[in-house]
Amino acid sequence: MLCSRILLRKSCEDVLRLGVRTGHPRFFNQISCGLDLVSMAGEWLTATANTNMFTYEIAPVFILMEKSVMARMWEAVGWDPEKADGIFAPGGAIANLYAMNAARHQLWPRSKHLGMKDIPTLCCFTSEDSHYSIKSASAVLGIGADYCFNIPTDKNGKMIPEALEAKIIECKKEGLTPFFACCTAGSTVYGAFDPLERVANICERHKLWFHVDAAWGGGMLLSPEHRYKLAGIERANSVTWNPHKLMGALLQCSACLFRQDGLLFQCNQMSADYLFQQDKPYDVSFDTGDKAIQCGRHNDVFKLWLMWKSKGMEGYRQQINKLMDLANYFTRRIKETEGFELIIENPEFLNICFWYVPSKIRNLEPAEMRARLEKIAPKIKAGMMQRGTTMVGYQPDKQRPNFFRMIISNQAITREDLDFLIKEIVDIGESLE
Amino acid sequence: MLCSRILLRKSCEDVLRLGVRTGHPRFFNQISCGLDLVSMAGEWLTATANTNMFTYEIAPVFILMEKSVMARMWEAVGWDPEKADGIFAPGGAIANLYAMNAARHQLWPRSKHLGMKDIPTLCCFTSEDSHYSIKSASAVLGIGADYCFNIPTDKNGKMIPEALEAKIIECKKEGLTPFFACCTAGSTVYGAFDPLERVANICERHKLWFHVDAAWGGGMLLSPEHRYKLAGIERANSVTWNPHKLMGALLQCSACLFRQDGLLFQCNQMSADYLFQQDKPYDVSFDTGDKAIQCGRHNDVFKLWLMWKSKGMEGYRQQINKLMDLANYFTRRIKETEGFELIIENPEFLNICFWYVPSKIRNLEPAEMRARLEKIAPKIKAGMMQRGTTMVGYQPDKQRPNFFRMIISNQAITREDLDFLIKEIVDIGESLE
Repeated sequence: MLCSRILLRKSCEDVLRLGVRTGHPRFFNQISCGLDLVSMAGEWLTATANTNMFTYEIAPVFILMEKSVMARMWEAVGWDPEKADGIFAPGGAIANLYAMNAARHQLWPRSKHLGMKDIPTLCCFTSEDSHYSIKSASAVLGIGADYCFNIPTDKNGKMIPEALEAKIIECKKEGLTPFFACCTAGSTVYGAFDPLERVANICERHKLWFHVDAAWGGGMLLSPEHRYKLAGIERANSVTWNPHKLMGALLQCSACLFRQDGLLFQCNQMSADYLFQQDKPYDVSFDTGDKAIQCGRHNDVFKLWLMWKSKGMEGYRQQINKLMDLANYFTRRIKETEGFELIIENPEFLNICFWYVPSKIRNLEPAEMRARLEKIAPKIKAGMMQRGTTMVGYQPDKQRPNFFRMIISNQAITREDLDFLIKEIVDIGESLE
Repeated sequence: MLCSRILLRKSCEDVLRLGVRTGHPRFFNQISCGLDLVSMAGEWLTATANTNMFTYEIAPVFILMEKSVMARMWEAVGWDPEKADGIFAPGGAIANLYAMNAARHQLWPRSKHLGMKDIPTLCCFTSEDSHYSIKSASAVLGIGADYCFNIPTDKNGKMIPEALEAKIIECKKEGLTPFFACCTAGSTVYGAFDPLERVANICERHKLWFHVDAAWGGGMLLSPEHRYKLAGIERANSVTWNPHKLMGALLQCSACLFRQDGLLFQCNQMSADYLFQQDKPYDVSFDTGDKAIQCGRHNDVFKLWLMWKSKGMEGYRQQINKLMDLANYFTRRIKETEGFELIIENPEFLNICFWYVPSKIRNLEPAEMRARLEKIAPKIKAGMMQRGTTMVGYQPDKQRPNFFRMIISNQAITREDLDFLIKEIVDIGESLE
């Protein structure tokens, strides 16, 4: 070996030492779901088994496991597990791509073979606060990002259903063919839940595929206390749900679920008989290769299955309720601490967006205050990173200067960690020039 | 916890016990690259670090690692690392999708925004023996699977360049716009290498994007003795290369490499400033989020970096040469053992395709022999699976009945394992009714 074992070990230590501690309870940056040890053990065993999920003959246990875990997810969504379908995808963006591709296929199956040239001009809809992967899917699929229309949201970040319906009607008048509407359940920045029932009604009325991007909020289905925020999700044609977010599974673990069986296969199979032989000594309907856009597919389900087995439904319920309690605590603390301002007064999920306004700029005119605020959050964050004490994300939105977006999704977070963050922001904020 | 630790541990043991031992040196089925322990250690540490590859602030070490590993790959391809680009994708199929999407973008950047409606009808080309993911990419992208034309191959499974050029000219005459041609370097079934130089000439002549799908064969670039089979790959615009195949990294580890920097970003960025802020205290060009179709992206590079560090270039050279030697040994043994017939007389890679013809059918008429042969390989394989001794893939092709496809890619394979397989096939084959 070129490199001795001692050197290799030293390298590994360096890598872990120099990396960001994403599992730390004071890491509140994007996708900060902590490090669940059962999930980690599952991932270690997954690596040991080193399986490919494309045929039952190679991965018999894991294929069955995927089916049984998906059955739990279908039931949580409210679907008949006998009729539903789905696939684990490498992340929510690809899951959303799967959904939009299937929607196109259902409407225009010939597009699979003949492309988009000779079919009507398709268009789709998603809220202006939705994840960019919906627009990206529209670009990748050849529909075009500009034919993915952003529907305005209300002051809480929820899609306005009347605006959606008006846009659908306008598109039809202009000769476009609306085919797909996406609701977000747990938006990236504000954690908003779009009004699923009302959008479902609109999709029914206009015969649109109804997709729910619950990548972030899907885990809330496991809390009977908070599930009502997703009421109507059972009416969706497809749902993206990332257990690597709220459910705390290690990246990657993302499911694209379909109410109706069969479509995924019709849409994605390429009749590759050289890989997916039909004359095998078992029921080849267990082979998933023909359902996937991918060929080799990583086993993302084992860690989730193991976590679920370990926590049970009750464990997940408690975990999610506890996070919601912490979010309420943090919101309360923000409200009562001088200098903090909430963007959305009463957050309904685990995202808490706020400004910190240092005392020396509190009395400025609005325009100047705005200009100063734009730079405060980046500077405070840079200060945190220099100190190495904590990390939290920030961003502007279309009408507001940079604000912090706090995400509470790591099971290891305590009230003390939240208090610490508030103190640290005040401390760095007040010390700025 | 709902389930005690003892029960959880028992479940894990059951899962590993009931699974297929894909790392076993007698597992010769698809994607049988063995279980490299350094790669496994890398994957375990990856799980421990639980990072997301989309920004430098979250994954500073791993983003730099990805760049430095890609630089080695660019150099192996023969590109200037100062000008090249790339991304690790979840498998070769998605990597091929990235390549075709970028090719479309280069030719018709407006399609990203306006879709495929108002641009000419695009078409692309790949050999009839190429991986189905090229056709799938064409379907997903809205170009249409039928506009991905299969170019005939010669008796060794290599694309016939004259047939490619004739088809390009024919398509142009029919008003289509050829834009993308794919060469396969290491085809799935026969392990054939398409004639890269000659196809590169054709692509230059007709201004097509030249993609090389070296998902399987890319590792051969690391053997100075065998590298000549990929001569001309440096002329490609994009290359798919899966270290989770020949290089023995655990699934998933797949790179899509680009000769020209910048295009990936232009093609895939959706200006999601809420995730990829531009006012951060470091050079944000290190952030990879805007280059990817994915948002959250698994860290697939650590295990590869660690393996490469451990083996060095010389270690990989020896590993690949050793596999090639074993493949030659196996081919020789097949040739000299009664009842075996090679499909391709002199395989140039690690795929060895053959029939076993049991003695009782050796004297049948061709038509009857063919009908019988179709069922022999599935029966022998079912026998192996029942015995639990070994596994090897089979499939038919367009003119031949079912034949075995042996793949030699596990470093742990010895000559004894190969002898065992031959003996087992004879043994089961002769015992068939």
